[in-house]
Amino acid sequence: RQTMYDIIFEADTPAGRWFDIGLLVAILASILFVALETVPDFREPGYARLLDAFTTAEWFLTILFTIEYILRLLCSRHPLRYAFSFWGIIDLLSVVPSYLTFFVGSSSRSLLTLRSIRLLRVFRVLKLWRMMNEADELSYAIWSARNKIIVFLAVVLVAVTISGALMYHVETLLFNVDEVTHVNPDSHFTSIPQSMYWAIVTMTTVGYGDIVPKTSIGKIISAVLILLGYSLIIVPSGFVSAELVGLRTDESQNREQHPCSVCEVTS
Amino acid sequence: RQTMYDIIFEADTPAGRWFDIGLLVAILASILFVALETVPDFREPGYARLLDAFTTAEWFLTILFTIEYILRLLCSRHPLRYAFSFWGIIDLLSVVPSYLTFFVGSSSRSLLTLRSIRLLRVFRVLKLWRMMNEADELSYAIWSARNKIIVFLAVVLVAVTISGALMYHVETLLFNVDEVTHVNPDSHFTSIPQSMYWAIVTMTTVGYGDIVPKTSIGKIISAVLILLGYSLIIVPSGFVSAELVGLRTDESQNREQHPCSVCEVTS
Amino acid sequence: RQTMYDIIFEADTPAGRWFDIGLLVAILASILFVALETVPDFREPGYARLLDAFTTAEWFLTILFTIEYILRLLCSRHPLRYAFSFWGIIDLLSVVPSYLTFFVGSSSRSLLTLRSIRLLRVFRVLKLWRMMNEADELSYAIWSARNKIIVFLAVVLVAVTISGALMYHVETLLFNVDEVTHVNPDSHFTSIPQSMYWAIVTMTTVGYGDIVPKTSIGKIISAVLILLGYSLIIVPSGFVSAELVGLRTDESQNREQHPCSVCEVTS
Amino acid sequence: RQTMYDIIFEADTPAGRWFDIGLLVAILASILFVALETVPDFREPGYARLLDAFTTAEWFLTILFTIEYILRLLCSRHPLRYAFSFWGIIDLLSVVPSYLTFFVGSSSRSLLTLRSIRLLRVFRVLKLWRMMNEADELSYAIWSARNKIIVFLAVVLVAVTISGALMYHVETLLFNVDEVTHVNPDSHFTSIPQSMYWAIVTMTTVGYGDIVPKTSIGKIISAVLILLGYSLIIVPSGFVSAELVGLRTDESQNREQHPCSVCEVTS
Repeated sequence: RQTMYDIIFEADTPAGRWFDIGLLVAILASILFVALETVPDFREPGYARLLDAFTTAEWFLTILFTIEYILRLLCSRHPLRYAFSFWGIIDLLSVVPSYLTFFVGSSSRSLLTLRSIRLLRVFRVLKLWRMMNEADELSYAIWSARNKIIVFLAVVLVAVTISGALMYHVETLLFNVDEVTHVNPDSHFTSIPQSMYWAIVTMTTVGYGDIVPKTSIGKIISAVLILLGYSLIIVPSGFVSAELVGLRTDESQNREQHPCSVCEVTS
Repeated sequence: RQTMYDIIFEADTPAGRWFDIGLLVAILASILFVALETVPDFREPGYARLLDAFTTAEWFLTILFTIEYILRLLCSRHPLRYAFSFWGIIDLLSVVPSYLTFFVGSSSRSLLTLRSIRLLRVFRVLKLWRMMNEADELSYAIWSARNKIIVFLAVVLVAVTISGALMYHVETLLFNVDEVTHVNPDSHFTSIPQSMYWAIVTMTTVGYGDIVPKTSIGKIISAVLILLGYSLIIVPSGFVSAELVGLRTDESQNREQHPCSVCEVTS
Repeated sequence: RQTMYDIIFEADTPAGRWFDIGLLVAILASILFVALETVPDFREPGYARLLDAFTTAEWFLTILFTIEYILRLLCSRHPLRYAFSFWGIIDLLSVVPSYLTFFVGSSSRSLLTLRSIRLLRVFRVLKLWRMMNEADELSYAIWSARNKIIVFLAVVLVAVTISGALMYHVETLLFNVDEVTHVNPDSHFTSIPQSMYWAIVTMTTVGYGDIVPKTSIGKIISAVLILLGYSLIIVPSGFVSAELVGLRTDESQNREQHPCSVCEVTS
Repeated sequence: RQTMYDIIFEADTPAGRWFDIGLLVAILASILFVALETVPDFREPGYARLLDAFTTAEWFLTILFTIEYILRLLCSRHPLRYAFSFWGIIDLLSVVPSYLTFFVGSSSRSLLTLRSIRLLRVFRVLKLWRMMNEADELSYAIWSARNKIIVFLAVVLVAVTISGALMYHVETLLFNVDEVTHVNPDSHFTSIPQSMYWAIVTMTTVGYGDIVPKTSIGKIISAVLILLGYSLIIVPSGFVSAELVGLRTDESQNREQHPCSVCEVTS
């Protein structure tokens, strides 16, 4: 039982490492099959056998994950604590939906939702993080910057609200206004929430282009807002960089550990 | 009165902290209601009761903000100084427009503008910054980099003007030119200001796609401009990073100035 | 003459500073007028008086710049050296085209080009850089990173060529191919240069959306290329950040100048 | 033979440097000709002579590269080791396809693929890296950050899968659903793989706009996902920056290890 525990929960032994790699491949394959099942092309008659193969492979992996879940429960020293931990719930949610499909009509809507819950399996990829110290460093850098991130989100909220309201007025209420409806019928900025969506898509430089300014004044204002918003949105990358640089510098200074310049003893 | 002052203006006491959190929720809810009122769907007959609920909730919050404003005036040591400060004016502007709607006809244009002024309430979110030192650090980093930002904006202005004029010539005046109008009718670059708008949208990597080069030469030139512009626009992120890294290093060096743990002399 | 030299060429005196600010406003206004002249709306009869106002204002500014150019020539100690310097040529090019328009027919194509040359005035904005040391620091950081930038451009060239050719094959030559033309008629990737343009627009995250993959395999490959290209294109921002952080650290270390820990003399 | 070896394989001598620059120009020209051959315009009768010129120039360069390849084989001390090295194979692959075209019918599909293999020549540009130490530094920074990059890719995979599945459900299965097909016919999110492609295009801020949310709930969720995804995707740029800053600091500290200028003792 101890051996099994080492293999399943620890990654220090060669067997544990191979177990982890095998699990990773199984999770990725499973995600792939669940995702491909939703492609409309594969539902056409010509692809029936391929879809069957996907389903079979998916069931094979589900049974594997079930065995793994039971083994984890058996060899864990605190089975209940594992069962109600975050990873335990993820492990359970990644096998239960497949079995529930037996009790649900084959073409109903709830079946589709059940099937998608299996995609939560992708979180198990993160369990393999325990192999790496780097995840801690990253979490620590983000955690150190949490207050800055809250301030930043507050500033983004203000910027998005004000620029959304401004663009809504300029594009929809001020220019080329229809006599009857009192709005510009060509405007893409049909409401303030829509304009705030535009502001987020623009400030993050995603820029889909499904909502763009049409009037000259709107283009001028949005050009200014883009430059301001761009300056704003690059700030958090500076925060994270600064934290990571600081961590790395602290580390290399600790490694140096030079003697005190007065008493010449290395503390 | 002192107790009330502590609760409303300071965030150090538990009561003051809860007051701040309650205020934050009220501001966010109020912004949401004002924004949702502009969605065209909610103006249809079926949603009349929902729209009424929004309006009622919004009035409730307005009265709350009015009471808060009066309390702030009453318990402030310098009521006039508060009333004419930036935050005092924001507080006033976030309640007055609601009351002014009584004096304005119900379907007029000025009503819509009045309603939107209420969105300035979002600035009150920033008042809660006083809880955090991080805002000072961020402001300081941006302030330290101000001269660099001016130089950078000058370079961006030059780049936008020159690339805008260049693309206007290539796309509109040089190729596939119409005999009568002397311009390329398919060109998206209809004028130099329009081309400058394209240059800003492109250099910041937003890239809506509403204005794109159509000629081969235009595509080649814009590919070169994109690479140059991209190199240019990443520079300010380096500035802010460098400032923030510098600040963090200075801080950790100040913290280090501890005496040697053996001879207790600060070297 | 020395006073005039100080005012025009130096920014240390109050008069020189005001001269610089006035010049900046004049340049920006001039750029604005030249750009607005190209907007098609202003060429319609209704806007004739506004267009005349633009032209008059533009002539007034041109005469101002001419006087400034002559003053610079007069009070410079080496007029010829100034005249053939970069800034001298920019100053000359920003006034000469306006006068040349007298010798050119009023509706000809060369007139439009002449007019646009006036936009080179925007470079004069950079002359005001001499007020700031920050420009030197920025130039130095970019200059220090020049070899890295060349390596980076070589890697970008390889990535753009290989992904362009790959996407051209997948999208145009391999799937949904027309029997007669041997190419996919729906493909946006009509040639390798077009695909390379797509690769540049995508890797820099501009993403216009005028050229997008249509086939499933094309989408999968482009998703992988986007992730790889994104990882690649963020590298130079790291270079510039590192240079700027290094510069700032060197500076603050020089300021510290602590005494030698052995002989206690500050070198 | 030693002289020839120095010229071809080393860049330290003036002759070797000129050889490298000549080779660079030849490679770039060759890439240009191969790419331009695929432009449909040049296949029209009017451009027949230009296309011939491209082909001739391309053959001239191919013969040059062949001579270079043979010289490299002749003057290398270990011809076989060179022939089977990465650069040797790239060198071979950049000349062989041109000769193979003699044995393949002139209008067949395999001809097109053969022609494109010549584009692998672009990798030879990287051979000129050996002139520069900077490439090592860059490779080292990326290599140091490899574990972090794997963790990061795992997080991206989770984020892309979960947001893809979420958007697929909201946009396609939950709202405006057709009675017969049980899906929203206007949705762009036709399957989970398609939604994952959208998630990658959005998180990297490329934002083509070919797939955008249409429902209000979809827009709200995607706005939140964009802000989260943006925060996530800027993290690796921080990693690379931190590594590069660390490398530069280590370097400058090593350089500093000079003795005190007064007492000549290295502290």
